[in-house]
Amino acid sequence: RRYQGAPTGTDIECKGWRQEAALRMLNNNLDPDVAEDPENLVVYGGTGRAARSWDAYDAILGELRELDDDETLLVQSGKPVGRFTTHERAPRVLIANSNLVGKWDNWEHFHELEAEGKIMYGQMTAGSWAYIGTQGILQGTYETLAEAGRQQFPDNDGLRGTITVTGGLGGMGGAQPLAVTMNHGVCIAAEVNEHRIDRRIETRYCMERTDDLDEAIEKAREAAEKGEPYSIAVHANAADVLEGMLERDFVPNFLTDQTSAHDELEGYYPSGYTVEEADRLREDDPDRYVEESLDTMQRHVQAMLDLQERGAVTFEYGNNIRGQVQEHREMTNAFDFPGFVPAYIRPLFCRGKGPFRWVALSGDPADIHRTDEAVRELFPEKEHLGRWIDLAHEQVEFQGLPSRVCWLGYSTDEEGITERAKFALRINELVRDGEISAPVVVTRDHLDAGSVASPHRETEAMKDGTDAVADWPILNALLNCAAGADIVSVHDGGGVGIGNSLHTNNHVVLDGSDLAAEKARRVFTTDPGMGVIRHADAGYEEALDEAEQSNVAVPMRDHE
Amino acid sequence: RRYQGAPTGTDIECKGWRQEAALRMLNNNLDPDVAEDPENLVVYGGTGRAARSWDAYDAILGELRELDDDETLLVQSGKPVGRFTTHERAPRVLIANSNLVGKWDNWEHFHELEAEGKIMYGQMTAGSWAYIGTQGILQGTYETLAEAGRQQFPDNDGLRGTITVTGGLGGMGGAQPLAVTMNHGVCIAAEVNEHRIDRRIETRYCMERTDDLDEAIEKAREAAEKGEPYSIAVHANAADVLEGMLERDFVPNFLTDQTSAHDELEGYYPSGYTVEEADRLREDDPDRYVEESLDTMQRHVQAMLDLQERGAVTFEYGNNIRGQVQEHREMTNAFDFPGFVPAYIRPLFCRGKGPFRWVALSGDPADIHRTDEAVRELFPEKEHLGRWIDLAHEQVEFQGLPSRVCWLGYSTDEEGITERAKFALRINELVRDGEISAPVVVTRDHLDAGSVASPHRETEAMKDGTDAVADWPILNALLNCAAGADIVSVHDGGGVGIGNSLHTNNHVVLDGSDLAAEKARRVFTTDPGMGVIRHADAGYEEALDEAEQSNVAVPMRDHE
Ligand SMILES: NC(=O)c1ccc[n+]([C@@H]2O[C@H](COP(=O)([O-])OP(=O)(O)OC[C@H]3O[C@@H](n4cnc5c(N)ncnc54)[C@H](O)[C@@H]3O)[C@@H](O)[C@H]2O)c1
Ligand SMILES: NC(=O)c1ccc[n+]([C@@H]2O[C@H](COP(=O)([O-])OP(=O)(O)OC[C@H]3O[C@@H](n4cnc5c(N)ncnc54)[C@H](O)[C@@H]3O)[C@@H](O)[C@H]2O)c1
Repeated sequence: RRYQGAPTGTDIECKGWRQEAALRMLNNNLDPDVAEDPENLVVYGGTGRAARSWDAYDAILGELRELDDDETLLVQSGKPVGRFTTHERAPRVLIANSNLVGKWDNWEHFHELEAEGKIMYGQMTAGSWAYIGTQGILQGTYETLAEAGRQQFPDNDGLRGTITVTGGLGGMGGAQPLAVTMNHGVCIAAEVNEHRIDRRIETRYCMERTDDLDEAIEKAREAAEKGEPYSIAVHANAADVLEGMLERDFVPNFLTDQTSAHDELEGYYPSGYTVEEADRLREDDPDRYVEESLDTMQRHVQAMLDLQERGAVTFEYGNNIRGQVQEHREMTNAFDFPGFVPAYIRPLFCRGKGPFRWVALSGDPADIHRTDEAVRELFPEKEHLGRWIDLAHEQVEFQGLPSRVCWLGYSTDEEGITERAKFALRINELVRDGEISAPVVVTRDHLDAGSVASPHRETEAMKDGTDAVADWPILNALLNCAAGADIVSVHDGGGVGIGNSLHTNNHVVLDGSDLAAEKARRVFTTDPGMGVIRHADAGYEEALDEAEQSNVAVPMRDHE
Repeated sequence: RRYQGAPTGTDIECKGWRQEAALRMLNNNLDPDVAEDPENLVVYGGTGRAARSWDAYDAILGELRELDDDETLLVQSGKPVGRFTTHERAPRVLIANSNLVGKWDNWEHFHELEAEGKIMYGQMTAGSWAYIGTQGILQGTYETLAEAGRQQFPDNDGLRGTITVTGGLGGMGGAQPLAVTMNHGVCIAAEVNEHRIDRRIETRYCMERTDDLDEAIEKAREAAEKGEPYSIAVHANAADVLEGMLERDFVPNFLTDQTSAHDELEGYYPSGYTVEEADRLREDDPDRYVEESLDTMQRHVQAMLDLQERGAVTFEYGNNIRGQVQEHREMTNAFDFPGFVPAYIRPLFCRGKGPFRWVALSGDPADIHRTDEAVRELFPEKEHLGRWIDLAHEQVEFQGLPSRVCWLGYSTDEEGITERAKFALRINELVRDGEISAPVVVTRDHLDAGSVASPHRETEAMKDGTDAVADWPILNALLNCAAGADIVSVHDGGGVGIGNSLHTNNHVVLDGSDLAAEKARRVFTTDPGMGVIRHADAGYEEALDEAEQSNVAVPMRDHE
């Protein structure tokens, strides 16, 4: 089955833009430029699908085309299962993907059902029709590093004058050098695979490469001293690079790693081998490979701990390198440096900030460029946001429908309007006034401030120990439904696998109408607001502070 | 802390009846006549609570009193955690209780969090403020037996002329003789504990008692031949009674059991001992007690299988007697008779039928009596429903706020109005016209047609193997929220324990307004409608038939 992506332009197949938006977003998720394997309906992240089968896909499209403005379509694990009369302030589509009763909530039972065509893995934005390609990774890395900078050097201009050291320039990790330089900083990245390095240099994600650590350190120091953005890849094993830094008494300001340490056989490379040699070893003697790989990882983590000791701000970037050496090499102190979520993302979540994104249904890049301007007009004081928008405008190629992602939060203005609502209301006006040629959909990642329970990632090490409490995402979905989001979805298992997380998403269609303005104002208050109250309840000062500043009701606190 | 139950009358503390209804229902759940242990906020079913703590309770009340008509209160495991602006067609209260991410979704992790005050067990109607005392048990048993009768003898007048044999006259099981006679049938119930028998006779739940099986059989046969309702308790062990019947070649029409077989030590009594002797044995030698108890259970199940073989319609009534002997006595054929849900409840669920209930917020029994009349007026053709209403009117004592429960379904009339909606719309008119003195809340059990995934009970042995798929209750909650229910709740673990089920509830407040009529019409279509589509999707003919007759959209079917 060949697939062409979303319809574009201002003519619609459905009875209204809310339904049309759902239809285009579903199709956009399956655009060959967006999806990893559109033939098999796989969007990204392993087997994250947009629909259960092509029959189900056809039936969803058929339903959306016929759906009235006061009707709601139900999608159960990628299959349309019902259609009921609701009202125009209610969602047009409700989605639940891959949810299982707790005791059966695991891959094994999931796969049994999947084999019979009874369920579908929705990942996060795959089954909720909100994936927009790789822009989100670059932006997430940019935000994480920006937050690290803010925490460490509150008065600094981003990462300017600082040096960040990391490893791994793969699918996700490759975004690191660019995310550092976008924040004005300097990056040294260790990568064993030359081809990966060359690819990053071709696409301008990384500036230079070297095989010589001394050269890398010298050039990095120079750029940092001048306050210039700079990035250099070192063609070497990350463990060796870090040990080399210790020997040379070089301590970076920030230290992390995105080698694929989560997989000691297929992902991580042992020291002492070229890539080709290591690949051969993996074939010939996988057991020996694993031992060598874990030995290197142990040295790698030890070097991170030593550099931390000497002053480098060190964190894990979700590759489980701490867990690996704790489990397989009994390094009980591996967790002495934190994960990126508790360290850098959670403070943002406390303020309702998260990866907010929007898509131009027209298909016209000019519409997104107009939204880029709107961001700059609305938030002139947010320098690093403006920087992101400028750089994204320059560097990010659109995939499928033109889209943009940035992090906005709660933080109300004088009139009590949140950042997210303010932006959405403005875009709605631009659509109404014809400055944007067709409606814009605003949505987000499931990884957001108040929308996810995921003890291995987003809710790792919550202050009050409520990492696994899933009442929050459920309330988030119900509340956004009550507030009038146009699509609401609840998924199990995104990011970390079936049974390990529960999370939600929503879409609001900005078609220029008063109804859209009403919905946008409400949803973009309730949705980031859930982030504030969830973290306030867990006792985070930043959240309690945000609640006070932005007048968010925290009932038990208010009644004290 | 002494507690008095719900406020009554027509003056309200809150800004509107929707909020007042929530306040009264919460308080009603804690009425000493309703709750098992109100001091500890425990309503029923082990530790099912209405609020997490008395502080949380106070804060909920405070919030409800201040809540505006366009605001929504969020309750997370019995604690108020947020309040947001929504709109008047949205719910006033959203509740999520005891939900945990799959991998952590078990009693152990729950109890850790509970000990720290971080979570609460909501059971089904405890944490969602919809428990109304024991009326539901009587009615559920009445419906189950009525359905058994309908299936077996479609042209018969209920159970008239038939004999039902069962065991156990405890808290739940005690409803059985009355439920049989309410259906015009004859019941023989074995019970080892004299005091339990005497209590059932005092309260007129059972007519006579005997120690002599021959007498019981003779009297039962006589009554059945005459077509007269009759019930008799046999003071004996159920296993002995069934074996006695086999010896006497007596085969009842229906056979079940509600001894507490789920607990072989504290619940079930072994044969060959009086209650006092057995109680002493339990103290002195619990291991021996368990062995004797399981031996009796094995004989008990064997006798059930033998009577089934000879023609008795046999089913388990949720006491796990089949599981016990399968596990502990390797009786591989124990599951040759079905559970009550697949046998008798599921056919009702297929048609959207479930335990629908309503509560008079006035506190005035006359209001419920007026609703009883309305049921008879609206559904004159439903004989067994009318019979229930008449008998309930006579025999059921109100606990807390006057209430009524009955099973209504989807089944639309000429105008496309479902049974549940038709009833609710009529009550709303009666409130509007002053025939009922104050608003009425309509709610239900979480055990309902389209609201629960519970592989050990409500979704046991689904036709397509989707017992554990939890997308359905999540869609149910979202959809009822979209349709405008006034309270929507999602709970984990009701009935069968944490991690074993996911289920939802909703309330609609009938205050006589047009808005209430609009909400009632929508919610009482979407809610039973979820039962129809969930079972249609699983391939049940009854559901596909109901969908066709009542014009319920089943998208993949419609597109075939
Ligand atoms: N939790 C999150 O949100 C999150 C976000 C981004 C990345 N991650 C994790 O980061 C890791 C990287 O992801 P990816 O998609 O870029 O993986 P990838 O497999 O595409 O790339 C990994 C890169 O690391 C290199 N590498 C492996 N071992 C090395 C070593 N010892 N020294 C130097 N280079 C080495 C490989 O050559 C490869 O280029 C994964 O573990 C992923 O799960 C997690
Ligand atoms: N799944 C459901 O929805 C559902 C509904 C109702 C009851 N149940 C189950 O039914 C059982 C009964 O519930 P309950 O609340 O009435 O329990 P209970 O403990 O109050 O009563 C059980 C009664 O059985 C009697 N008994 C025990 N062993 C006996 C024996 N061998 N012979 C004769 N009498 C015996 C006891 O004396 C007692 O009166 C439980 O297992 C309960 O879980 C399940």
